[in-house]
Amino acid sequence: MRHRDEHKQQALLEATLTEVSEHGFAVTSVARIAKAAGMSPGTVYLYYRDKEALLEATFMEVARRIIDVAIEAFSAPLSSEASQSSEAFQPSDAPDYIVSLEMMMSQASSEETLGAATHQLKSALGRVWQALVSLGHREPALFRFHDQFLHSSHMHESLKIANQEKAAVLLDAFAMGKQSGILKQIDLVLIEIFLFRTIYSLLQGEGCQIPPISDESFDQAFEMAWDAIAQRP
Amino acid sequence: MRHRDEHKQQALLEATLTEVSEHGFAVTSVARIAKAAGMSPGTVYLYYRDKEALLEATFMEVARRIIDVAIEAFSAPLSSEASQSSEAFQPSDAPDYIVSLEMMMSQASSEETLGAATHQLKSALGRVWQALVSLGHREPALFRFHDQFLHSSHMHESLKIANQEKAAVLLDAFAMGKQSGILKQIDLVLIEIFLFRTIYSLLQGEGCQIPPISDESFDQAFEMAWDAIAQRP
Repeated sequence: MRHRDEHKQQALLEATLTEVSEHGFAVTSVARIAKAAGMSPGTVYLYYRDKEALLEATFMEVARRIIDVAIEAFSAPLSSEASQSSEAFQPSDAPDYIVSLEMMMSQASSEETLGAATHQLKSALGRVWQALVSLGHREPALFRFHDQFLHSSHMHESLKIANQEKAAVLLDAFAMGKQSGILKQIDLVLIEIFLFRTIYSLLQGEGCQIPPISDESFDQAFEMAWDAIAQRP
Repeated sequence: MRHRDEHKQQALLEATLTEVSEHGFAVTSVARIAKAAGMSPGTVYLYYRDKEALLEATFMEVARRIIDVAIEAFSAPLSSEASQSSEAFQPSDAPDYIVSLEMMMSQASSEETLGAATHQLKSALGRVWQALVSLGHREPALFRFHDQFLHSSHMHESLKIANQEKAAVLLDAFAMGKQSGILKQIDLVLIEIFLFRTIYSLLQGEGCQIPPISDESFDQAFEMAWDAIAQRP
């Protein structure tokens, strides 16, 4: 068997990401991806058995990057310099901050402690929002690919479960937020739509809106998303 | 010049809608649309000078249907039997109901009158929400096409302005809602994203979510959308 090269594998995922987000699934063939990555179709098959496997691997890589950025922002209440780099960050770490936020939520009984826990959860989700908006500005193809794949026939339950495991820290916080009465009693899919898919709508609209969507609107949009998911006071 | 037939023209728009929403813009050629509509490519060019003109006409037809349904629901506080049919309905009619809602909003000064105007506007937007969800269930291709076109290079400022004119009744209500302090001081694009694009996200998620999105979630989603756009009490 020929030597497999990690750089080539990464180049393949990047080429798939670019090709699919620009041209869609239908016209993106293995031959086209190979050409974009500067290799022969034969080389592609050394790494992935078919187009389907290549698309799935790209989706999982894209989802990993989005989830890592979200969890890092959620877990890092201090300055960004103090936080660990995305590379080294392990979502399973559950830093002290998260442990204390979860304790605050679970013990919130009086109006005062509930208010403090609400404030903490809102701040943490606000950081996630900002971090995802920045990520979307830096790498617009990421969200485009993610959205396309999520609503295609390529999406499978097993991929969803794998991603939910990676995002467990966030999902736990949502569950505790609901339990403690900070968040509305709503299905996770509604939190996803109002808190995360609205970011994608904003980013998507940015390119084609005249005038372009302002920074102020991005800030207001987080407040709107929060009002959508939080219990009314 | 050969005879132009309104049924054929309509069949062409329907075929474009179906082909694009199923396969995307990139692979949808005039030849493919012609075949789906059961006519020769030559016949297509009797009606539309090129693919671009055909796509634009389809978009305007799709937008017209969505806007008509929205405005009819917004304008019809009585039972649906009492309302006019979609076919006969003229958005420019501005029925008595809208005139009185606008008067309520413009004159809302005391806490009581503001509360009543808020209730009326929320009810009217709730009917719009329900009507659009029903439309999406009946004709899923409509929203898929609309979303794809809106974020493609085919979208132009002139098309947007034409649609805003058709939706004037709704846009006026949003403007007055902001003026009277019922709605947040936010850009129209944020109202669109939280009130309308969330419907598309729900419909899109319905096909691929396991378990499927419940009716209860659809109802809760309107409350969330309202909380997002309305001033906090």
